[in-house]
Amino acid sequence: MERLAIGIDIGGQSSKCGVVTQGGTILEQSVVTSLIDNFDDYLKLLADTVKELIRKTASQGFVTGIGIGAPNANYLDGTIRYAPNLTWARDANGKPGVIHLADRLKEATGLHVSITNDANAAALGERTYGVAQGINDFIMITLGTGVGSGIITNGGLLYGHDGFAGELGHVCAVKDGRQCNCGLKGCLETYASAMGVARTAREFLQNSSQESLLRKLDPEKISSKDIYDAAVQGDEMAKEIFAFTGRILGRALADFVKFSSPKAIVLFGGLTKSREFFHDEMVQAMNDNLMQIWKNRIQILYSSLKESDAAILGASSMVW
Amino acid sequence: MERLAIGIDIGGQSSKCGVVTQGGTILEQSVVTSLIDNFDDYLKLLADTVKELIRKTASQGFVTGIGIGAPNANYLDGTIRYAPNLTWARDANGKPGVIHLADRLKEATGLHVSITNDANAAALGERTYGVAQGINDFIMITLGTGVGSGIITNGGLLYGHDGFAGELGHVCAVKDGRQCNCGLKGCLETYASAMGVARTAREFLQNSSQESLLRKLDPEKISSKDIYDAAVQGDEMAKEIFAFTGRILGRALADFVKFSSPKAIVLFGGLTKSREFFHDEMVQAMNDNLMQIWKNRIQILYSSLKESDAAILGASSMVW
Repeated sequence: MERLAIGIDIGGQSSKCGVVTQGGTILEQSVVTSLIDNFDDYLKLLADTVKELIRKTASQGFVTGIGIGAPNANYLDGTIRYAPNLTWARDANGKPGVIHLADRLKEATGLHVSITNDANAAALGERTYGVAQGINDFIMITLGTGVGSGIITNGGLLYGHDGFAGELGHVCAVKDGRQCNCGLKGCLETYASAMGVARTAREFLQNSSQESLLRKLDPEKISSKDIYDAAVQGDEMAKEIFAFTGRILGRALADFVKFSSPKAIVLFGGLTKSREFFHDEMVQAMNDNLMQIWKNRIQILYSSLKESDAAILGASSMVW
Repeated sequence: MERLAIGIDIGGQSSKCGVVTQGGTILEQSVVTSLIDNFDDYLKLLADTVKELIRKTASQGFVTGIGIGAPNANYLDGTIRYAPNLTWARDANGKPGVIHLADRLKEATGLHVSITNDANAAALGERTYGVAQGINDFIMITLGTGVGSGIITNGGLLYGHDGFAGELGHVCAVKDGRQCNCGLKGCLETYASAMGVARTAREFLQNSSQESLLRKLDPEKISSKDIYDAAVQGDEMAKEIFAFTGRILGRALADFVKFSSPKAIVLFGGLTKSREFFHDEMVQAMNDNLMQIWKNRIQILYSSLKESDAAILGASSMVW
């Protein structure tokens, strides 16, 4: 019988569960809502879904454990801590609390449960099934609504003393720059995410009188997709928005290299679909800010995993 | 018989060799010149010194290996690579070259030899004998002529894919800031080192007409010691120079925390003698730039090792 793992990707809206082979094939998957307002009900839904998936794949192998990728998840103690976007992860006063998800799901299913934050899960997935196979030192940067990161050093995830290592979306990219949700200013995430690119567009529109297709849109509703579409049509402002993003990201990547000297940086997430418009500027800025020993030597890789599968695969890879 | 280790601290001017017990006592030490212009002669001197030290301590224990801390040393392949300040580490054309120091000293002495860069050796020394005993995740920052770093994660040194991880003296502290010897601009080292503090003094003197004891000195010869002495006498400009340094260093430390989430940051080196004048501003700037999960939770420690012994102890700790 083949060994199987369950991967669960928990998001604010929905939770995706899948049964995965060691080769990285998803045999069965199921999507359930995350919009439940108490933990006991959510836990029951999750446990029932897991049991159903096990039943469906029983003829193909046996499930040896569960891996979960979730926002604000801490590998070291198996908790989810103060996750603002998970409705079921509140305390008695309705505020984001500390939820012992790993222990409780283990009780409910009898399986070993590991959890980690979503960017760490993505890094593990890339190493187990994706472009980073065989690479012992790399940094995964997820360019989605925000910016997340998972750092692999010496073949394993870097957790730090408290499990929270790798908050690279919140390094200071621009001194006294844009206000970030985390309370700080100038965080990389406020520039190099889908949200950040949209902010850049609003700034550019406001601070110049340059013509642009983007002027036809409601500035408050501009999305990174709109900017991409304009860039594809040759819009100069849209192209400059991505180039500006690439320069800020590349400078930040150079400083990351000085920390852990990775062989590669792996980029993942919605914003990478626009890479044709920021890749060159990003690489140039990174190399311009690296010392001779690293200049032109750090690989930039883009995730090869299907975005819809990557999170389940990443979470499941914790089991192996 | 007690197990002993030899620690060698190689600097541009001299090389210090010592025999160290597992408890961190230096039984014997010897200082030889580094100012030799070919590697074979330097190697012979080093091997002879090692043999003499072994002879002297033979009644107290047996030496099990040699650890070396040296500039531009690479742990992974045992080489010293392109060290501009080591006269014996040149290639046939007189330019800094690649020297297989670990292998050659092993041949010459019969002992196992490990080498690493000086800041990494300092970090190991602090963990084995100093303030970081029992701390599995910390960052060592050496504030000397330049700024070096050694990063301990999960109990071991972070080396990266090529052995060069931890070049935190060269992260960008000030965008388009001061020219650094490494070729980049705004490196932390150009602000938060003895050299950097002296540059700050020259800038302050030039850009203001504020009275200061420092005006009595030749600006080109001002040292961090002069600035410290002025600060002790209550000189406002001297105090502001250190405060400025603390703010830049603190901001940089905050970004380091976001990378590896260390339990502590350990500071070492000549500049820490002036800490009464920069500590508060550094801590304030660090916490101002940290997210809630880390604010006021990262310990700042100062090395407890005697500076003259620390390098030998650190190098020797690689043997254990």
